[in-house]
Amino acid sequence: MRKTNIKELAKILNFSVATVSKALRDSHEISEQTKKKVLEAAKEFNYTPNPYASSLRRKRSKTIAVILPEVADNFFSLAINGIQSIAEKKGYHVLIYLSHENFVIEQSFVEDCRSGRVDGLLISVTSETQNGAHIQKLLDEKLPVVFFDRELESIAAPKVITNDYECGFNSARLLLERGCQNIRFFSVSSDLAICSKRAEGFLAALAEAGLPNENAICYFSANDTHTHEHIKEVIANRGTVDGIVASVERLAIQTYLACHELGVQIPDELKVVAFSTVETAPILNPSLTTITQPAFEIGKNAADILFTLMEGKDYGYTKKPVIIPSVLVERKSTQNKTGA
Amino acid sequence: MRKTNIKELAKILNFSVATVSKALRDSHEISEQTKKKVLEAAKEFNYTPNPYASSLRRKRSKTIAVILPEVADNFFSLAINGIQSIAEKKGYHVLIYLSHENFVIEQSFVEDCRSGRVDGLLISVTSETQNGAHIQKLLDEKLPVVFFDRELESIAAPKVITNDYECGFNSARLLLERGCQNIRFFSVSSDLAICSKRAEGFLAALAEAGLPNENAICYFSANDTHTHEHIKEVIANRGTVDGIVASVERLAIQTYLACHELGVQIPDELKVVAFSTVETAPILNPSLTTITQPAFEIGKNAADILFTLMEGKDYGYTKKPVIIPSVLVERKSTQNKTGA
Repeated sequence: MRKTNIKELAKILNFSVATVSKALRDSHEISEQTKKKVLEAAKEFNYTPNPYASSLRRKRSKTIAVILPEVADNFFSLAINGIQSIAEKKGYHVLIYLSHENFVIEQSFVEDCRSGRVDGLLISVTSETQNGAHIQKLLDEKLPVVFFDRELESIAAPKVITNDYECGFNSARLLLERGCQNIRFFSVSSDLAICSKRAEGFLAALAEAGLPNENAICYFSANDTHTHEHIKEVIANRGTVDGIVASVERLAIQTYLACHELGVQIPDELKVVAFSTVETAPILNPSLTTITQPAFEIGKNAADILFTLMEGKDYGYTKKPVIIPSVLVERKSTQNKTGA
Repeated sequence: MRKTNIKELAKILNFSVATVSKALRDSHEISEQTKKKVLEAAKEFNYTPNPYASSLRRKRSKTIAVILPEVADNFFSLAINGIQSIAEKKGYHVLIYLSHENFVIEQSFVEDCRSGRVDGLLISVTSETQNGAHIQKLLDEKLPVVFFDRELESIAAPKVITNDYECGFNSARLLLERGCQNIRFFSVSSDLAICSKRAEGFLAALAEAGLPNENAICYFSANDTHTHEHIKEVIANRGTVDGIVASVERLAIQTYLACHELGVQIPDELKVVAFSTVETAPILNPSLTTITQPAFEIGKNAADILFTLMEGKDYGYTKKPVIIPSVLVERKSTQNKTGA
């Protein structure tokens, strides 16, 4: 059935457009009888108010935006579930924008949020994002913004993250305890706080053990379409390297695929730990030792803070991020034969 | 920096709001000199046109919506990449709505699309969706809609799918050829066309082999929060069942996790084939035989058709869906010892 617009509806009813509009907004200027007529006709003739127009009037879109780099990583799909669990309770829609690790796309999405389309923003930045001027603009215009996981240290906004430094430290220490002597950290970015903090913790564990740290951090750009080939090269030419910490899920899976293709045995020839929430960790060959991030909880907490801000309430913001700790789950990929 | 609105901008310039508005729209009524002044002041005083207002004027949101059940399934994250590859070229934003397999949420998202917020819709319906009245409304109002993967047979709109019946048939035949004698099909819905067509093909292969088909189809509702326990029960009490076809990725992973916990050996005690695009298939324990769907291509083709429709062009619509075939990749989960 074709939609009727407000002019046509007014004509059908023989009322002015202003009267119909006021009746639809439940104005006290209009009699109950007129309101009833208008509502009945709106239903009968398939009139839906245009929310662009009503957003202008109400200045509320009942929508929040989530900008994140990708959904193929399990972390983000679980975080979205956490966000949606709160938004649904509040009767809000969630719009998801994927930046595909591209800073220019992220900027354009953030710009889009300035226009009144959304009432608040949850963001996890791309691995290319080095400065936050685009996000600062939103904050200057009083649009609530909350970071989750991938934050920008230079921007003063609420942040929900995990204990990245500590986890980086623990992952390296586990490998050293299992007998590794020459370990590497696979990173996607030197700029992303989550990666640099994990790397810092990793290096601190090396220093504590009195081991050298030159070349200990290997970078694989998130936009490198040849990551698989590059990881395969690194594994093939690994020399004495006997342990790897993968800072994101994708790099762990690529490491496994490379070892599989090259016939390199995990854990006998190479031990692997990954920052990952991948559900298949226990059924991989061999099962994968993970730093399991509380992805759902991170999303849920970030959304909780966002709604608190959107409702104009104070949630007790300090410069310190909210930290929800990850859990190290050891599986076969780091165990020695006797421990397997 | 605070944003300026059009009234304030007009005041600053000492022009009428109408003049400023016309200048910003590049109207021929306004002199070049005035336009230049207005544009310079807009920049200087941080004026951004409100896109709700300009959407009303232009009736173009430069945005398409994608409604789909979840992103944890690799199929959908790859399909989104395919969609985005086209949308980016066209300079469109993609808004992603997750229905979480909930029909009421899907209805509310579709309703949201009626309001002019988006110029077109790509949809893959929930496993609960039995009728398409909500989608028919959009079509009646001339909003372009294209189905991908999970379509509704009753709705006359373009559809991009894979060869589900044939793949169901081939998956059963593979298991029978590998010596299975009592096989089951794990489905999420009897209503979803993709599931019922895959099941039909599966049953046809049983019939061709002269095998009984009672109880051959097992249902695990998509909203069952205890799927893992239920699959574990089915595997534990499987009796003589020696082969399983999982119609979606999630059920395959749950089957593996259940076998792992129960100590059931794949493929010796139970062979498994899955409809899945999961990247980890080769590194699972054992590697997983898959019907690999062309997820990226399905998304890309559906988006191509949507833009053709949005541009008012004819793409040669017939009632027949566009079919992009899947590929069966055999790995260890269906092989006998000698073949391993």
